[in-house]
Parts: sequence; C-alpha cells; structure tokens
Amino acid sequence: MQSYDWQSALQQAVRKNQRDAHNRYAQLATVRADGTPANRTVVYRGVSDDQRSLRMVTDLRSDKLTEIAAQPIAELCWYLSHTREQFRIRGRMIAETQSAQRDATWKALSDAAKAQFFWPTPGIAVGSASSSTASSLPADPATEPPPDDFVLLLLEPFYVDHLRLRGTPQTRFFSQLNNNVWESTAVNP
Amino acid sequence: MQSYDWQSALQQAVRKNQRDAHNRYAQLATVRADGTPANRTVVYRGVSDDQRSLRMVTDLRSDKLTEIAAQPIAELCWYLSHTREQFRIRGRMIAETQSAQRDATWKALSDAAKAQFFWPTPGIAVGSASSSTASSLPADPATEPPPDDFVLLLLEPFYVDHLRLRGTPQTRFFSQLNNNVWESTAVNP
Repeated sequence: MQSYDWQSALQQAVRKNQRDAHNRYAQLATVRADGTPANRTVVYRGVSDDQRSLRMVTDLRSDKLTEIAAQPIAELCWYLSHTREQFRIRGRMIAETQSAQRDATWKALSDAAKAQFFWPTPGIAVGSASSSTASSLPADPATEPPPDDFVLLLLEPFYVDHLRLRGTPQTRFFSQLNNNVWESTAVNP
Repeated sequence: MQSYDWQSALQQAVRKNQRDAHNRYAQLATVRADGTPANRTVVYRGVSDDQRSLRMVTDLRSDKLTEIAAQPIAELCWYLSHTREQFRIRGRMIAETQSAQRDATWKALSDAAKAQFFWPTPGIAVGSASSSTASSLPADPATEPPPDDFVLLLLEPFYVDHLRLRGTPQTRFFSQLNNNVWESTAVNP
C-alpha cells in the first residue's frame, strides 16, 4: 500500500473526470441544531493555498454556517461518474470571511457564480418583503471586491474512504491522519 | 403553486435523466453515534409499495443501520445532472429485513448487485481472518431467497427542498408534510 495516497488519487480522479461539469459537484453533510443531518450539493473549487484543505464557497446567509459553528465536523461525499469512484472525506470545516485566498477564490469565480451573492435571501418566500436585503449586483462584478456575504469554506480532512467501483475486484482504501501523517489501509469494498 | 407537487417533479426528473446511470445515485446523510455526520452514495430503487417512501437497499453489516437506529432522520441529496436539479429529501428511515417488498426488491436486483451481499465483510482489512464471514455466493443467485444480510431501506419524507438550476430565474420549492398533506411554497433559490 506504500504507493497509495488519497490526495494523489483524488487529483487524478478530478483530472480524469473533468469532461463533465457535474463531476466537480459533491455532497456536503453537516448536522443541524436539532441533531438531524443536512446534505447539499457544493462545487469543488480546488485545494487551499497550504494544500491541506478542499475549497468551497458559500453565502453568509446559508444554514451551513450556523451548522458548522455548532458541529464543525462534516463529511463530503464525492462520486465521480466517469471513473466510477467515490471519496467520502471527513474533516473539520473552517469558514473564512477575510483572507487573501478568500479574495482570490472570489476573483476566480465565473460571473454567474458571483451574481448569486447579489440575489435576494435564499429560502425566503418569493416576493416577500424581507427577501430584498442583498446588495444590488454591481455593473461589473469582476472589478468589485467580494461582497460581505461571500464566504470561503475549507474542509480540512482527517479521514478518507475511497472506493473504486470499476475493476474486478473493486478496491477500497481507508486513510487516516495520525500525528500529521496519513496512513492508508486496503479494505474490503 | 397549486400545480406543483414534489413527487411528480421527482418522477419526471428521474425519467428525464434516466439516460445516465449515475443519475440513479444519490447521497444519503445520517448521523454517527459521536454526533458527526456520515454521507455515502446509494442507488435509488423506486418508490415503496404504498408510494410514500423512496426505496434503497443495504447490507446488514453496514454502518448505516446502527446510525439510523440511533437517529432515524436522514437527508438524501439527489443531484440530477442532465436537467440540473437538486432534491434535498428529509425523512425517517425504516429498515425492513422481512417483508414482501423487501423480497421483491431483491428479485429485481441485477446479479452484480446481488453478488455484493456474498462478499467478505465491507471495511475490514483485505485478507484478514474475520473478513470471510459472509455466506458463499450461490451458483444461481436469481433463484435463491435473499440472504440474511439483505436489507430494504425506506426513506419516508416529510420535507423536500427542490432546486432547479436550469432557467432564468432558477426556481426552488420547499414542500412540507402537514397532517398528512403536502404543502409547497416557492422560495428564492
């Protein structure tokens, strides 16, 4: 198993699956205040500057942020359809509202992704009075600083379960961070 | 909103996305004994006989079952890539180890899906002694009764968040079960 590491496996999977936009989408599970799970699709935005975390973005008005404030452990389930493999990535969530990499992530977003941060409050009934609290979309979002509602989310993993469905037999690895060193074991799929 | 109901919307989405096998896969979030979330891909197997629940299958040896015994509320996040829509389906999980629909679900599985229930214990180190507890694969699984490890999982929803990314503007509906009646509201995406 000395040749396996999940970070290389993930980057290889991302590369091999990049033809399909949906393969940049993964599902992030958190826990609500009432102890029940929440689960939604997020877009993978690359690794953090220090290479240790996975990057996502969210809106300050989103429920995710209150959830991770109370329970910072999350699990990202990422199924990549072309190579037919799944990564279950468990780790600690960190929200950054002011940092150089948060600003750089904003700059790298498409205009369509940027525009969402200027929409009315998500999850409020359409047309309700309180739904118009967002700032209005600037004429050229590309040149503006990120809006206050823009948050960089980092998932700093400590446990990864990687399953490859393709091939006979299927293969599966558990990887665990111990004293800052990743250790992997081949397990039954 | 009188014309919207999430069950019809989901069945329509399933039909429109059926060209891609991966669109039958969704991510099921549960809560672990330590209060952290778990998240994994499951295969949608249609609705239950009473039409109220979504059907999945699992292995009695899987962690899901201990998790839902302690916290039966789960959230399924289902992203359908062709029509670009997401259903977040929150509900109560029910595990059936003996029922007519459990046996019928077994019969409808492919041979490859059936074979997995005769594999060594999932998640145990490859080749370890305790990994060979499963019964051996029968010569013709199609004619055999379901093995003891085969479990039908039902998700009985009480809250659904349906987001359509395609179209301008995007549309989003919250649906909630109140006194056995579903009520839907159009909300900001």
